[in-house]
This record gives sequence, C-alpha cells and structure tokens, in this order.
Amino acid sequence: MVERLRQLRLTHFKLCPFSRAIRLVLGELGLRPEFVDVQPWALDRTFLAANPAGTLPVVETRDGRLLIGAYATAEFIDDLGSDEAIRACFAAEPVTVERSSRRLDTLFPGDIDSRAEVRRLIDWFHLKFDREVSQELLHEKVRPVLDRKTSRAPDAAMLRAARANLKYHLSYVGFLADQRRWLGGDEISYADLAAAAHLSIADYLGEIDWEDVPYAQVWYQLVKSRPSFRPLLEDRVPGVAPPAHYAELDF
Amino acid sequence: MVERLRQLRLTHFKLCPFSRAIRLVLGELGLRPEFVDVQPWALDRTFLAANPAGTLPVVETRDGRLLIGAYATAEFIDDLGSDEAIRACFAAEPVTVERSSRRLDTLFPGDIDSRAEVRRLIDWFHLKFDREVSQELLHEKVRPVLDRKTSRAPDAAMLRAARANLKYHLSYVGFLADQRRWLGGDEISYADLAAAAHLSIADYLGEIDWEDVPYAQVWYQLVKSRPSFRPLLEDRVPGVAPPAHYAELDF
Repeated sequence: MVERLRQLRLTHFKLCPFSRAIRLVLGELGLRPEFVDVQPWALDRTFLAANPAGTLPVVETRDGRLLIGAYATAEFIDDLGSDEAIRACFAAEPVTVERSSRRLDTLFPGDIDSRAEVRRLIDWFHLKFDREVSQELLHEKVRPVLDRKTSRAPDAAMLRAARANLKYHLSYVGFLADQRRWLGGDEISYADLAAAAHLSIADYLGEIDWEDVPYAQVWYQLVKSRPSFRPLLEDRVPGVAPPAHYAELDF
Repeated sequence: MVERLRQLRLTHFKLCPFSRAIRLVLGELGLRPEFVDVQPWALDRTFLAANPAGTLPVVETRDGRLLIGAYATAEFIDDLGSDEAIRACFAAEPVTVERSSRRLDTLFPGDIDSRAEVRRLIDWFHLKFDREVSQELLHEKVRPVLDRKTSRAPDAAMLRAARANLKYHLSYVGFLADQRRWLGGDEISYADLAAAAHLSIADYLGEIDWEDVPYAQVWYQLVKSRPSFRPLLEDRVPGVAPPAHYAELDF
C-alpha cells in the first residue's frame, strides 16, 4: 500500500505573530506550504473542531499530522532532529533552498545553556511582547478594520500604553544586538525569527521609528534580508496599508 | 578546586501560575528549593538586572545557573534528560522522593506525537488560559489587595468575562478527562501540572464550582492528591483567603 501523502498546509493569519514565526521557520527549512488564510476572530466550525483553542497557526504535515500552535510546532521540529526526518514529515517534494544566506541549521543551536537562553527570549516575545504590544496593536488597529462587529475607533489610552511598551522592548533588542551577533548568541536561532515576527507586525502598522534604535535596526535588516522573510514583506491586509519602508530591505 | 555548590532557589509569587507549574515540576522530581517570595508588580533592581522581562519564576540551580521563566526551565529539564543529570544540576543533597503516588518520569512522555500533544495543552494553559482567566483574576482580585498603588474595587465586566472564559476552559478539561487517563494521554505529564497550576489559582480565588464539572473534578483530585501539590495547598496570601474546600483533598 502506498502511503497517502498530502500537501504541507499552513492555516494562518497574515498579521498573526505566531503564524509569522512558523512561516519563517518553514522558510528557513526550505519548505513551501500551501496557505489557508483565516482571521482569528472568524474561525469556522471545522477549524475549531480541529483546534478548540482557536489559536494560530495550524500546520498540516505531508504525512497527515496536525501541529497546533507555534510552541508545539517548533519543538516538534526540534524533536525530529535530522534534516531527513524533517523532510520526510514536511516536504512534498525535494526542495532547493536558496543559499544566498546561511541557513538556520537548528531552531535551538548550541549546548543546553544556549538552548535555554534562546527559549528565554522566545518566551519574552511570545508571552510578554505579545501581550504588551502585538495583541494590543492588533486589537486596536487591525481588528476594527477587518471585523465589522467590532468596528470602532482605536482606544487612545491602550495605544499609548502599547507604544510605551514597544519602546522598552526595542531598547532591549538593541541592547542584545549590541552585545551579540544574533539575539540568542553567536548563531541565528528561533529567537531571532520569533522576535522578528512580532516586530514585523508593529512595523507593518507603522509603529517603529528605526532611526531611534540603530543596533536593533542592523539586526532587523539582517533577518529581513533572508529569503525566508520575503513572503512576509509581500503580505497586504485590505484596509490596513503598511508604511513605505515596510517592504524595503534598506530602510 | 572544589566546585562551589549553592542551594537550589526559586524566586516566585505564591499565586503566579507559572511559578506554581515549576514548583510542581520540582516537587515531582523530589527537589526542595529554598523559596524567595516576591510580588510580580514590586520587583527590585537586582531581580530586574537578572531578568529584565520581570517574569516569574526564576530558578537558581545548585551549580549556579539561572533559569528564567517556566518555558526555558521545563525544556531545560527535558534537555538534561537523565535523573542523574537533573540531580547533579539541581539537587543539593540526595533526595528521597515520597512514593505514595507514581512519580512523573518525564515532563513530555511518549513519542514525538505525544510530546506535541502535551505541548499543545501547555500552550493552551500558559498562553490562552493565562490571558483569558489567570491574569484577569489576579488583576481584579489579588493585585488591588496587595498593591496599594492599584487599590480599587474589581471591575465587574472584566470579572464576568473571565468567569465566562473559565467555564469554557473547565468544560474542555472535563472533555479531556473523560477521554483520557491524564490530560495529555495515558501518562501524567507537564500538561497536567501546568493545567492544575492555573486552575489551582482560580480555585484559591473561589471561582470554581467543581460539582458542575465532575470529570474535571476527578482529574483535579488526582493531581491535588500528589505529594508535589501539598505545599501549594498550604499557601496563604494575606488579605486573600481561599474558600474552605481549597486545601481539602476530598472536595
């Protein structure tokens, strides 16, 4: 009997930071999923039956597995370990990876201490930055445009708080980028992808003055220039236009 | 030269769900840390220099490592792997583990699919439940009591929303507990500990009617009866008294 193989599929929202983090991961691995676009506040019954948490992204692997959420997906890829195992599980066909920049070899590189440091930073972005900045910006600036039920003007006090938080986070990214080659250490890791995923949404929404944070800017330029990032720069959400510099590599 | 060994130390807040999850993990591993009690909204400079995210818990291992946050700590323990490695890193002296109930052998038991399922559920509690229930309850019912600067009456609308969310989460726990021996599958895992950590705070605050959710209650009784849970049942926060059933094993 021939194993029935499906297409690798990613259900995501273009401005969801967790979805973007996993899109970057798949891109670094040379994998090109088929995309299913959804909005986090308008998920249908089929989606909710598969993932009652109603969270994004959801990855359907070539061998029929369902991976739910960025945490389970990233650690699953780490558990698989070898390129061959990842390929067998995810890739529908042999993939050629663009070698214009060095590929990310593993999501959590180095020894157990380096891995803990990378995970500390991922937690920073997926838990703290998400709550203090990403979700607030999406709630005030994106949802009211796309979701008629919540249509209203942004709450000025909420936006002010999110902006103040964003400044603090950017200064910490700058501090790290000044001390280290990549946020987690000498090698690029999932921490860089997760951080860039969140920051790219604030950037899409015109909330970042890069000139104020030169070290953070240099680091972001490095991540933004990677082939895995290109599809994110082409994202457009109707009714929410990014600033001119959003898609520029030299910004 | 003799390696300088320190005492295992956990900096935590008694009603922080992430702190509780790691207390349960350490308890299951037979480790008894020295506790440093802090309040998440009143962290001092020394703490913030070590952990600028201002998140809890922070674990200082016997060999001088600093582990920041529940995510990095739990995955670090998984990376260590063997009991011996965990012991060498964490335990100040040989520990005797109470064997009245079967110990948790590994935080993420089973094959890679089981591990992904456990992590899906951890994400559910640490990201979704935390945002929709734990942080809301702490913000409305605990912080105003302990933190003079924010002293005020709870916001009725926020509490109503958190309670409605809690009902949905409890029904999902009940659904899982009806289908499976433990939340993640046949074996107890970190998913049970993380879920119980969050629920134990809602329970401390008198927000759970266990009679409404009998399957969830049976599962919670199992976790609550473990020796690792006992210290949590003895926690008391000044000015916030738990209901009578909080510390009872037969509730």
